[in-house]
Amino acid sequence: MADRKIVLRDNDLPQRWYNIAADLKTSLAPPLHPATHQPIGPADLAPLFPMELIKQEVCQDPWIEIPDEIMEILKLWRPTPLVRALSLEAAIGTKARIYYKNESVSPAGSHKPNTSVAQVYYNKQEGVKRIATETGAGQWGSALAFACTLFGLECQIYMVRVSYDAKPYRKLMIQTWDGKIDPSPSTKTKYGRAVLELDPHNQGSLGMAISEAVEDAVGRDDTKYSLGSVLNHVLLHQTVIGLEAIEQLKMIGEKTPDVVIGCVGGGSNFAGLAFPFLKDKLQGKTNPRFLAVEPMSCPSLTKGVFEYDFGDTAGMTPLVKMYTLGHDFMPPGIHAGGLRYHGMAPLVSNLVKDKFVEAVAYHQTDCFKSALLFARTEGIIPAPESSHAINAAIVEARKAKEGEVIIFNLSGHGHFDMAAYDKYLSGQLEDYEYPMDKIKAALQKVPKV
Amino acid sequence: MADRKIVLRDNDLPQRWYNIAADLKTSLAPPLHPATHQPIGPADLAPLFPMELIKQEVCQDPWIEIPDEIMEILKLWRPTPLVRALSLEAAIGTKARIYYKNESVSPAGSHKPNTSVAQVYYNKQEGVKRIATETGAGQWGSALAFACTLFGLECQIYMVRVSYDAKPYRKLMIQTWDGKIDPSPSTKTKYGRAVLELDPHNQGSLGMAISEAVEDAVGRDDTKYSLGSVLNHVLLHQTVIGLEAIEQLKMIGEKTPDVVIGCVGGGSNFAGLAFPFLKDKLQGKTNPRFLAVEPMSCPSLTKGVFEYDFGDTAGMTPLVKMYTLGHDFMPPGIHAGGLRYHGMAPLVSNLVKDKFVEAVAYHQTDCFKSALLFARTEGIIPAPESSHAINAAIVEARKAKEGEVIIFNLSGHGHFDMAAYDKYLSGQLEDYEYPMDKIKAALQKVPKV
Repeated sequence: MADRKIVLRDNDLPQRWYNIAADLKTSLAPPLHPATHQPIGPADLAPLFPMELIKQEVCQDPWIEIPDEIMEILKLWRPTPLVRALSLEAAIGTKARIYYKNESVSPAGSHKPNTSVAQVYYNKQEGVKRIATETGAGQWGSALAFACTLFGLECQIYMVRVSYDAKPYRKLMIQTWDGKIDPSPSTKTKYGRAVLELDPHNQGSLGMAISEAVEDAVGRDDTKYSLGSVLNHVLLHQTVIGLEAIEQLKMIGEKTPDVVIGCVGGGSNFAGLAFPFLKDKLQGKTNPRFLAVEPMSCPSLTKGVFEYDFGDTAGMTPLVKMYTLGHDFMPPGIHAGGLRYHGMAPLVSNLVKDKFVEAVAYHQTDCFKSALLFARTEGIIPAPESSHAINAAIVEARKAKEGEVIIFNLSGHGHFDMAAYDKYLSGQLEDYEYPMDKIKAALQKVPKV
Repeated sequence: MADRKIVLRDNDLPQRWYNIAADLKTSLAPPLHPATHQPIGPADLAPLFPMELIKQEVCQDPWIEIPDEIMEILKLWRPTPLVRALSLEAAIGTKARIYYKNESVSPAGSHKPNTSVAQVYYNKQEGVKRIATETGAGQWGSALAFACTLFGLECQIYMVRVSYDAKPYRKLMIQTWDGKIDPSPSTKTKYGRAVLELDPHNQGSLGMAISEAVEDAVGRDDTKYSLGSVLNHVLLHQTVIGLEAIEQLKMIGEKTPDVVIGCVGGGSNFAGLAFPFLKDKLQGKTNPRFLAVEPMSCPSLTKGVFEYDFGDTAGMTPLVKMYTLGHDFMPPGIHAGGLRYHGMAPLVSNLVKDKFVEAVAYHQTDCFKSALLFARTEGIIPAPESSHAINAAIVEARKAKEGEVIIFNLSGHGHFDMAAYDKYLSGQLEDYEYPMDKIKAALQKVPKV
């Protein structure tokens, strides 16, 4: 009988991260200063990030050693299982072999700790005592609080107020890990107070929360800022996912996958699985398809433009070249909160533009339908974000040829998203295709540089 | 550096369950018919359980083969990691080496699927189409729904109404796995309707829910009943935990533990870890200490009597000889819902009576304090039940001699118990020592046989 779960031992863990920047066909456009529109250098980023992470952000070496101290923490849950989805295959009667990488087994329940642990480590190395960040639905905030408590750093999280109120359990998870958390807009920052003065009941947005976290970090000597996706060094830290998967497929003598799938919000879980497999494709050695799956309601890759834009709503971050819907795009309140971002990681954008990666978009009800099928066959309740990857895998598996191999990233579990399942199961979940004219209007505001 | 996580490969999984009944120093007293007080035979249990499980219930062979079909499902998350708690050790400055078996990695988040998968398999083998059970806090109900959906059986769950209303996410987890769930008392059974007629707002109890599930199963040809703890065959299925742990300790050349710890409600997670280690102690080959940890508010082992009693409140189940607080003992509403049971597994009771196992009781605030320390060092948010084992491990580690080895069972995660953490973190959690006179009154009602 085929092995259902393929497990590596601790000492088979990847020792290095893979830096795809070294192998790109066209180089990344440089980030630009938000005011001067001139390329920024390491010194511009120093108030926000420790120098080692800035070096990783611009590094051109293909491999970067993973320090032992990071490895020791990653080993709490890594290597994660690669699972052959035998029961799902049987349920849909596919000719394909489907595998998924189960990132939901981390203590925070997603792939996010792969980078939060690394980021906190480098901050600690450089004497930083406190880290500030923003969080929307709470996946990233909880992953950073988890890493901070393990390394003994203080963690300050600005959580979008609407989520803070609606998702008390994520907030409690963060507090259990000793994280300090405030609803954003908060009275802790000048920016937050200004917003509250105009509108005391403001529900907040990710853009506002970013602005507060950045202001907090810049204003204190002991504090740096941390981001959970989009940036090159964040995607770099996630490549342990794909590097492990390659070893796991080798272990059972499986061929190179024909299709590699991940959901995309900022792009980090997709990148984590896909980049190590993309290395050979970039070098012309293999030719699998790579699918970046986004929600129809926030279609940055399928309906956005590839232009310079701000990472945040307020226009305080550097300008980066990426697929974007415009930095003041307001995504509807879908349940895959982690996929509600107007832009896309520059590395993922580059690979889509150069046609190494395809983008597809699905409606959330289709994704929940697939999530249910997955839960009822493979037994794991997926995060709404991950259900986009599952849906794409099922679509591909249904039309697959004999012996095709499909692999997708199960980026997280849905234990803190049961309210979304409630809506779906009670028939209250609606689809939302963001109107093209609103997208066009938002794209008008993309800065011309 | 010491390995933090010790992982077995799929093909190192135990192939057999260990049946401790074969090695007991004094035999188990036979279960008695609730009305006649005469020993019951397999035929008496046939309306409730498939014959293979009844055979296991009374089996005297030390080893029972695990069928391949069960193994294939267990492999979705087994073998579970054995983790060296290096960060916890450092935080408390112990001279001991502490290990924990991480059962929280199962899709349902606890050790419960180890037996639900086995039970559903044997039911399916014997043509059963539908299984009825009760659930209190929801751990067992979700584990049974998970197993039923994987094998394609219908699952009917009676959930204590107060939990049904207070824990909507557990209910949704069950529905996501296609389980049918009703608050108990329900209008589905004669017993439930009778209760509701007297009191339409009755909040339910585990005893009532058992009575409804039993009535449901007995009343339908296609349906059997299933229980999540207490019974011999349930504890048998959990022994994969300890059998794996023994292999894992061997793998790293670690000695036999000096202390083996688990929390106890019905007794199954403690038994799962402890019984395989107890085999050698029963045979006089080793002499570790075994600690069964219960809440001070429901102290069946530390303050109960070893007598025949009913398993349920209504007195419908067979009489079994066990430590009990009396079947109409009403435990206070502590947050470790899985430990609120008036009795104790006969096998565990036997081993406590014969002094192979020690019992200790702790207050819930002490346990939550230890849970926080564990979450902030080892990174995993434990279930309130498991925090009792953690607290005992910390107490033992603080007084341990150089090189002592402590192992405990982390029976589940706390993702669905964040409301309890909220109470603890906000200082609202209270301790409760059940008054001895109330216990004495309840013990008066233990049937004399």
